[in-house]
Amino acid sequence: MALVVQKYGGSSVATAERIRRVAERIVETRKRGDDVVVVVSAMGDTTDELLDLAQQVNPAPPPREMDMLLTSGERISNALVAMAIASLGARAQSFTGSQAGVITTSSHGKAKIIDVTPGRVRAALDEGKVVLVAGFQGVAQDTKDVTTLGRGGSDTTAVALAAALGADVCEIYTDVDGVYTADPRIVPNARRLDTVSFEEMLELAATGAKVLMLRCVEYARRYNVPVHVRSSYSNKPGTMVTGSMEDIPVEEAILTGVAHDRSEAKVTVVGLDDTPGSAGMVFRAVADAEIDIDMVLQNISKVETGKTDITFTLPRELGPVAVEKLNGLREEIGFSEVLYDDHIGKVSLVGAGMRSHPGVTATFCEALATAGINIELISTSEIRISVLCRDTDLDEAVRVLHDAFDLGTDEEAVVYAGTGR
Amino acid sequence: MALVVQKYGGSSVATAERIRRVAERIVETRKRGDDVVVVVSAMGDTTDELLDLAQQVNPAPPPREMDMLLTSGERISNALVAMAIASLGARAQSFTGSQAGVITTSSHGKAKIIDVTPGRVRAALDEGKVVLVAGFQGVAQDTKDVTTLGRGGSDTTAVALAAALGADVCEIYTDVDGVYTADPRIVPNARRLDTVSFEEMLELAATGAKVLMLRCVEYARRYNVPVHVRSSYSNKPGTMVTGSMEDIPVEEAILTGVAHDRSEAKVTVVGLDDTPGSAGMVFRAVADAEIDIDMVLQNISKVETGKTDITFTLPRELGPVAVEKLNGLREEIGFSEVLYDDHIGKVSLVGAGMRSHPGVTATFCEALATAGINIELISTSEIRISVLCRDTDLDEAVRVLHDAFDLGTDEEAVVYAGTGR
Repeated sequence: MALVVQKYGGSSVATAERIRRVAERIVETRKRGDDVVVVVSAMGDTTDELLDLAQQVNPAPPPREMDMLLTSGERISNALVAMAIASLGARAQSFTGSQAGVITTSSHGKAKIIDVTPGRVRAALDEGKVVLVAGFQGVAQDTKDVTTLGRGGSDTTAVALAAALGADVCEIYTDVDGVYTADPRIVPNARRLDTVSFEEMLELAATGAKVLMLRCVEYARRYNVPVHVRSSYSNKPGTMVTGSMEDIPVEEAILTGVAHDRSEAKVTVVGLDDTPGSAGMVFRAVADAEIDIDMVLQNISKVETGKTDITFTLPRELGPVAVEKLNGLREEIGFSEVLYDDHIGKVSLVGAGMRSHPGVTATFCEALATAGINIELISTSEIRISVLCRDTDLDEAVRVLHDAFDLGTDEEAVVYAGTGR
Repeated sequence: MALVVQKYGGSSVATAERIRRVAERIVETRKRGDDVVVVVSAMGDTTDELLDLAQQVNPAPPPREMDMLLTSGERISNALVAMAIASLGARAQSFTGSQAGVITTSSHGKAKIIDVTPGRVRAALDEGKVVLVAGFQGVAQDTKDVTTLGRGGSDTTAVALAAALGADVCEIYTDVDGVYTADPRIVPNARRLDTVSFEEMLELAATGAKVLMLRCVEYARRYNVPVHVRSSYSNKPGTMVTGSMEDIPVEEAILTGVAHDRSEAKVTVVGLDDTPGSAGMVFRAVADAEIDIDMVLQNISKVETGKTDITFTLPRELGPVAVEKLNGLREEIGFSEVLYDDHIGKVSLVGAGMRSHPGVTATFCEALATAGINIELISTSEIRISVLCRDTDLDEAVRVLHDAFDLGTDEEAVVYAGTGR
């Protein structure tokens, strides 16, 4: 008998009819003899509607009250799913994040999970009940106030519960049926991956793959919780995220996929004094504005001037903030100007194969060059190559790289074509 | 500096615009220097919408999950009011029933308040904050589950908090501007009462006056909490419910008002053996079905047969249950048949004046007789006379009694008419 944690997104429970379908899937799992803990997001647009109401009464609502407001969405969906399960003859009990022992920091709207003490969840499981836990929320360790975990919070709740309960697997049900070698909307012959290592999934999530949030994968990796990404609308096998790259035999090591990201902007600080500490001052200024930067490039200093340029990327919506902050410190830091460019895209190739297969970087650059796509910035890790290009070139870049490394599924496509006979 | 508890009903916070208006009234009170605790019901139709959703996923939803579902409505409205108050520059903090220390029994859907331990509420008040408490809900002492208090729950929450905090007054804001001598929709010249004693308000609530729920008045009387009934749409003085009848000088003692109730049905058990215990068996059977009965009449036994009839009234929706239960015990109890009549209405005259003014009952019956209204059953208390009549006669009965005891406001009406000059 296994212990399974299942997480269903808001679209999976958007209507009473979908809630009943989700309940059937949960009861099926229970009938197999497994213990089941379920984390459900708020129904469909509930969260947006609550945000809209808040805006109407206060354009700058206090974060604590915002969390009190938003957490009601998951209470509603969880109670409804529990009712739907009961109507199918199984016993179910729903818990708020606080009741389930999800202890967090007190930073409202983006709280971090400190600990999970699932005593009541365990007790309900021991009584043979299906347990529902409101995702995305917890209780602050110090203030005892209700908190929310921010984006991807429900996935993180599910993985954190799975870790605390020692679950065999955490199933994330979403509107795609797994992790693909590229976005199928851009690359029609993209292939679904049966398994991905935590490290590869981390790189994919970090470079724009939307299917799992980075923090959720980090949590799963730290506590070694296998995460099964599946579609809530089908019974397809999905993708299992588990294990370390080290477990993958080198000769099998292949490239995982191509990720893309159009959410970043590029900032270049021009004419910076090439003296120790000046770069540090630039990044300190950005860090003080609580902006995370991604790629960084420092140009070779021009000997004649002793000046250099620093280029970095950051979330597009925070670009103006960073530029203003830097211009305010122009004299203090010492540079000539700040350039801002938000018409960029980032394409990344991820895969353990890179370690053992030479020439990947060369093939990567050749493929883009052949397609006439100019590379503006390169950064690499042991299992990833990322480059910046024009946003208008991004989709084409994803396609040519996906082809160049033969990540597609021609065979399977043929098989599908043949199924008519 | 006073401590004021204010309660606002669902219609008062049905939209973002009304929530802002309520917030303004709250902040005005705070600016007068008073400490303010606010209890808010769920927005407008929220509760009905949640009930509807529940019905769609499970026609017989588990009570525990129902409470988890419904309590989210008050979380939403309270958080929004707190935000609206903050936008006006005042500091506010909202609490769930559980956070506010509302400890209840574990009977979901109709929990009773066992104790109120408002430690966090007191602390927030001491910090100068306006405190909002989600009405209608609490936490079960034994299971720690979320509970709801049932009908009139938010009023009861407000009064219970006022008692626990030693508040100077509990203001109940509703869509009428006070307690009237009769329902103004039936009696156009009904008069608003400036003050009503707890005993009189108890009788009015018990006999159909909708403005305050009986349990809320009982709670206020037990802990001697003055309740101020006011309109949330005006600044009219409203009605103060406070003090004992004993405080009212006899010579001032007047009749309070006429209440009516069309929610009851009449059951008659015919041909009951007039032997000790048979009546007890009838009422035991009804009590076993958890049905509260109201008026009771046992006819004089017919000497020739040694049989008697027992008539009683009960909530109309429970009538069929009672009849079925009794018919099932017909042999055991020993009676010939059960008659059921749900076309009845109850009209009641309430007032301390009854004690000191003889002939009230006579005037009461004469007035109805003159109007050709037949009295089917009479019951009285020291300060109340209630009779059953046809439901079709009920409105007329209310009018003629209101006139017969001169409860109207001709003078005031004249004054109003004269204000044009």
